Amino acid sequence: MIIVMKAESTKKDIDHVLDSVEKAGLKGVLLQGTNRNVIAIIGDERVVPKDFWDVLPGVEKSVPILAPYKLASKEGKDFKTIIHFNNGKKIGGDHIAVIAGPCAIESKEQIIEIAKRVRDAGATALRGGAFKPRSNPYTFQGLKEEGLVHLARAREVSGLPIVTEVLTPEHVKLVSKYSDILQIGTRNMQNFLLLRAVGESGKPVILKRGMSATIEEFLLAAEYILAQNNPNVILCERGIRTFETHTRFTLSLSIVPQLKEMTHLPIIVDPSHGTGKRSLINPMSKGSIAVGADGLLIETHPEPEKSFVDGPQTITLESFDELMQELKPVAEAVGRKI
Amino acid sequence: MIIVMKAESTKKDIDHVLDSVEKAGLKGVLLQGTNRNVIAIIGDERVVPKDFWDVLPGVEKSVPILAPYKLASKEGKDFKTIIHFNNGKKIGGDHIAVIAGPCAIESKEQIIEIAKRVRDAGATALRGGAFKPRSNPYTFQGLKEEGLVHLARAREVSGLPIVTEVLTPEHVKLVSKYSDILQIGTRNMQNFLLLRAVGESGKPVILKRGMSATIEEFLLAAEYILAQNNPNVILCERGIRTFETHTRFTLSLSIVPQLKEMTHLPIIVDPSHGTGKRSLINPMSKGSIAVGADGLLIETHPEPEKSFVDGPQTITLESFDELMQELKPVAEAVGRKI
Amino acid sequence: MIIVMKAESTKKDIDHVLDSVEKAGLKGVLLQGTNRNVIAIIGDERVVPKDFWDVLPGVEKSVPILAPYKLASKEGKDFKTIIHFNNGKKIGGDHIAVIAGPCAIESKEQIIEIAKRVRDAGATALRGGAFKPRSNPYTFQGLKEEGLVHLARAREVSGLPIVTEVLTPEHVKLVSKYSDILQIGTRNMQNFLLLRAVGESGKPVILKRGMSATIEEFLLAAEYILAQNNPNVILCERGIRTFETHTRFTLSLSIVPQLKEMTHLPIIVDPSHGTGKRSLINPMSKGSIAVGADGLLIETHPEPEKSFVDGPQTITLESFDELMQELKPVAEAVGRKI
Amino acid sequence: MIIVMKAESTKKDIDHVLDSVEKAGLKGVLLQGTNRNVIAIIGDERVVPKDFWDVLPGVEKSVPILAPYKLASKEGKDFKTIIHFNNGKKIGGDHIAVIAGPCAIESKEQIIEIAKRVRDAGATALRGGAFKPRSNPYTFQGLKEEGLVHLARAREVSGLPIVTEVLTPEHVKLVSKYSDILQIGTRNMQNFLLLRAVGESGKPVILKRGMSATIEEFLLAAEYILAQNNPNVILCERGIRTFETHTRFTLSLSIVPQLKEMTHLPIIVDPSHGTGKRSLINPMSKGSIAVGADGLLIETHPEPEKSFVDGPQTITLESFDELMQELKPVAEAVGRKI
Repeated sequence: MIIVMKAESTKKDIDHVLDSVEKAGLKGVLLQGTNRNVIAIIGDERVVPKDFWDVLPGVEKSVPILAPYKLASKEGKDFKTIIHFNNGKKIGGDHIAVIAGPCAIESKEQIIEIAKRVRDAGATALRGGAFKPRSNPYTFQGLKEEGLVHLARAREVSGLPIVTEVLTPEHVKLVSKYSDILQIGTRNMQNFLLLRAVGESGKPVILKRGMSATIEEFLLAAEYILAQNNPNVILCERGIRTFETHTRFTLSLSIVPQLKEMTHLPIIVDPSHGTGKRSLINPMSKGSIAVGADGLLIETHPEPEKSFVDGPQTITLESFDELMQELKPVAEAVGRKI
Repeated sequence: MIIVMKAESTKKDIDHVLDSVEKAGLKGVLLQGTNRNVIAIIGDERVVPKDFWDVLPGVEKSVPILAPYKLASKEGKDFKTIIHFNNGKKIGGDHIAVIAGPCAIESKEQIIEIAKRVRDAGATALRGGAFKPRSNPYTFQGLKEEGLVHLARAREVSGLPIVTEVLTPEHVKLVSKYSDILQIGTRNMQNFLLLRAVGESGKPVILKRGMSATIEEFLLAAEYILAQNNPNVILCERGIRTFETHTRFTLSLSIVPQLKEMTHLPIIVDPSHGTGKRSLINPMSKGSIAVGADGLLIETHPEPEKSFVDGPQTITLESFDELMQELKPVAEAVGRKI
Repeated sequence: MIIVMKAESTKKDIDHVLDSVEKAGLKGVLLQGTNRNVIAIIGDERVVPKDFWDVLPGVEKSVPILAPYKLASKEGKDFKTIIHFNNGKKIGGDHIAVIAGPCAIESKEQIIEIAKRVRDAGATALRGGAFKPRSNPYTFQGLKEEGLVHLARAREVSGLPIVTEVLTPEHVKLVSKYSDILQIGTRNMQNFLLLRAVGESGKPVILKRGMSATIEEFLLAAEYILAQNNPNVILCERGIRTFETHTRFTLSLSIVPQLKEMTHLPIIVDPSHGTGKRSLINPMSKGSIAVGADGLLIETHPEPEKSFVDGPQTITLESFDELMQELKPVAEAVGRKI
Repeated sequence: MIIVMKAESTKKDIDHVLDSVEKAGLKGVLLQGTNRNVIAIIGDERVVPKDFWDVLPGVEKSVPILAPYKLASKEGKDFKTIIHFNNGKKIGGDHIAVIAGPCAIESKEQIIEIAKRVRDAGATALRGGAFKPRSNPYTFQGLKEEGLVHLARAREVSGLPIVTEVLTPEHVKLVSKYSDILQIGTRNMQNFLLLRAVGESGKPVILKRGMSATIEEFLLAAEYILAQNNPNVILCERGIRTFETHTRFTLSLSIVPQLKEMTHLPIIVDPSHGTGKRSLINPMSKGSIAVGADGLLIETHPEPEKSFVDGPQTITLESFDELMQELKPVAEAVGRKI
């Protein structure tokens, strides 16, 4: 931590900061500059929240040197996290993982049909929503446990691991009973009780970036899960909120290579929610792989027009087949396989 | 709903849309323009989600005519919502309500001292956090139920209604046992299960705007609560996330008069979280009242330097006294009382 | 400047940075931390751009200690800038300055009528656009020099100083011939040749904040003008671009008290462009004054419905009269006069 | 145009709107809905600015049906714009164009060396800045005309067409004398006098997106140039300003396929400014091509550490060679050549 003192700060202010540093078990070094005095803290600054220093009299600002997350950080680690499933599938590593399926599970027949089709097209896992968080209280909210039963049946039939979203700590036990991977939605990225609960479940977790979360907040959310001794976190960029309205969100692909510099966790991209537009899913999927993503999360439905939820951002099963074919050469062009 | 057809849409596309309109029990009128065909839907368009139309072949875009929320809307209502408490205090109406207290409850003594002091300075209600959602998993997370007990004791001593945040549907029952008002934090504005649970509790709810929520999403979140037959929702602007970093968030005061044109619900402002800076709380409180806010939510602490949480945005009890004195003439200048 | 070295940086990297610091005539102090080495630079770091350090091998990041603007900074200055006009009017100081007039000058009669009316209502200066930057190439672009002549005539008749926008360095001479105050629009805040030209003109300048400019960029733009020995810069907040679309821009009122902590320059607010909505101008004007603004820029027109430009954000002359009456008690409530 | 009337609008309001529609030479159709009356305008609505309708009494909002730009629109056009140069190079079409060079021209030797190296690596054109818009008034501002002379000499030696930025209408003539392509920087995207001047020059123009410009504003800026009978506009995404600060801007790659649906103009991407980080240029270049961009703008310098400007986002000539090699398979994977 570097503490910059105000131009008008007094010796008393400086001594007070130095005292506080010492009380925290750290070492402070005073640097007397031409225009400002600066106190550098030696030791692991993360034992004291940044806020603490900002509040002391005479302090202009404090600048952290170390990232506030430790387990999610690449620093001091020489591995990349890879998540393995019973059937030999995995997320992370050389292969690109493609997770596909409908936004909402609508019936057993629907989810089984989709499961077989996406498996045949080369998907790694099947996704489907049983509990749907909808911004409008008057719209379809999901089949709930019945949906989970259908999803598990689709796993049996297709052999694909399954992914579904969990909305609240209370549901974690129930959803864990059925699902191979738990998904945390963008609106829950900072639902800290839920993060703790999925951490404790021990299940692999797809953590979607909050639509206005900074990279640091994103990695701190992952840290919550990792801190429960659950090492299996998959980060997912799904678009951020900006002034641009032609797409529903702005898919920030540069976060992918940026995260690869900061963390050992795998990073996937959701171009369906990230754009909200069917016609952009194919090019943005290619772009995601080209920038180095470890996988994709794609909404597919036999008849998007008749889907209960998110039709405009859902592609048909035929389009999904085509997409998988077209992704292959892109993956190879960047030294990956799909 | 207005449905704009693509320039290249066919008669078949148009007929398909008109059919779908009819099937939904609505009436469609085709307008043949010079460059585009447009279908206007007559009837309550809210029976069909906007998404549905966007997915149909040949549709360029659909434009809703009516707001998707009904209960929160001012339209067709000739009252303003006012929330009354047992002790004669209220939120909404002519008086400005000021809710003050520490970010986190730290001890019984602390919260009782603060309660008495803010009451004497003229506060309407006391706030204090028992469950703290923190972005860093390694920091203080609140006293939990013990904190609620202290808070309830402070109510007894001070006579002030009390406000505290609830984080998850599981906690609603427990928190409702103690608190007069439930608060939904910015990170939970779209935690729909929680919105439903606080709706069902029947307790008045302070709903904080999500840090990247549009006005429409904000009112839809209120609608979730109202839809449970709980009419007592207080909207709270607490800063949005923008590119500006000198303040922690950008406090969007124009939302206050804008909301007053759209809803009958009271609107308060939280300048503490909205700026993250102690020195800005006084001027932004005055600004909030001048633009027409119905109240303020202010973090106060006897010694912000020693507070466990949010020190930089907390003012001392002395500053709070001063602020209350200075707010009086501003309130009067805009025809309100404090 | 604080230079944080990467965890994996070598002794050679550190020596190279220390050498570079010395070559720049500064002094470097190496601090060996537990997890990172940090080099603190003693001396006026502004002689070397921040970028320079970030590029050196082994550098993780560099953190400036001093603001990059000097003349605009409050630091080391014990005055507030006040701009005086021939007729005794001024901007800055205790009085609130209100600058009013139409977006575009449409005719001599129009601007003279408006001038008299806004003067009688208590305005400090008259504004009117002669050159109009319009985002659509097919719309009205202003009366150009003819407009300036009308505007100057309105000054004679009303006695009010006049303000008009200048779009390009070539126009500065011409516009300076007529106008008392030059205005730089939001789209030109970083038109550095124009900033230099208005600086050289010696005329007072209203500098509008770029719609996506940070506070630092805003003050650096002011610095461009000040660096030409032109001390008369008036900062103007006019709304920033955010995800919110109910208002055209988001008027960031917290920038007003924030700027007051950083600079000696006066700060005014433009609620007309900042909201784009007639109905919000009155409350946001009150809010601007309550947070400490030194003035307002208001679009007024006898018949907004018939104005060539910006009708939706323009108030009538009657509404302006009313607004001026209602602003008085607000100004008094915060110890100012209008 | 669709005009939505307020719930409380009167028959007089409606008649007034219908009259105004007729006076504008258009036809209005009144649709009486259950909750709102709506007036649909038949005819080319672009003869009246949208603003006009919003101002009329009783109007709630107006919704344009047609895009406000015509020349830039793909609608009714069956070609894609391709820009050809004397030496057989081109921008647009099947080949990916790569424009490379230093941010600022520093000397004749420097620019000639770079020209030869980037040509040998396969670049389409050479870029170099002679006039540098810098946000800090105390930093290097470019070699000006001397730089242009060097750049033209580099063209002679390398055979590459040259690109340089023009800052103000006054410079257009001078810069056009030397440069094959004029570049409009992000801060000038809405400098309408400059847009007109480069339009009149007849030279091909690279138009960089404003850092907070919507897609519509971007295409309207292109329209300004096109409206001067200059058909040769190349759009360039260079990052937008969002809340994210790990990269300098957020490179919005989804704008590329989105623009391809809206316009016939070629679209290139500038990953150097768009990320501000050397390490991200390679992956984001690949991503740009994968999403369908027609080209790239890359900052290269023999020794970024010694470059006068933008060192942190500049890659070495060796990295550029490597990048060009790695881009080839990506281009082929999406059916393009480089």
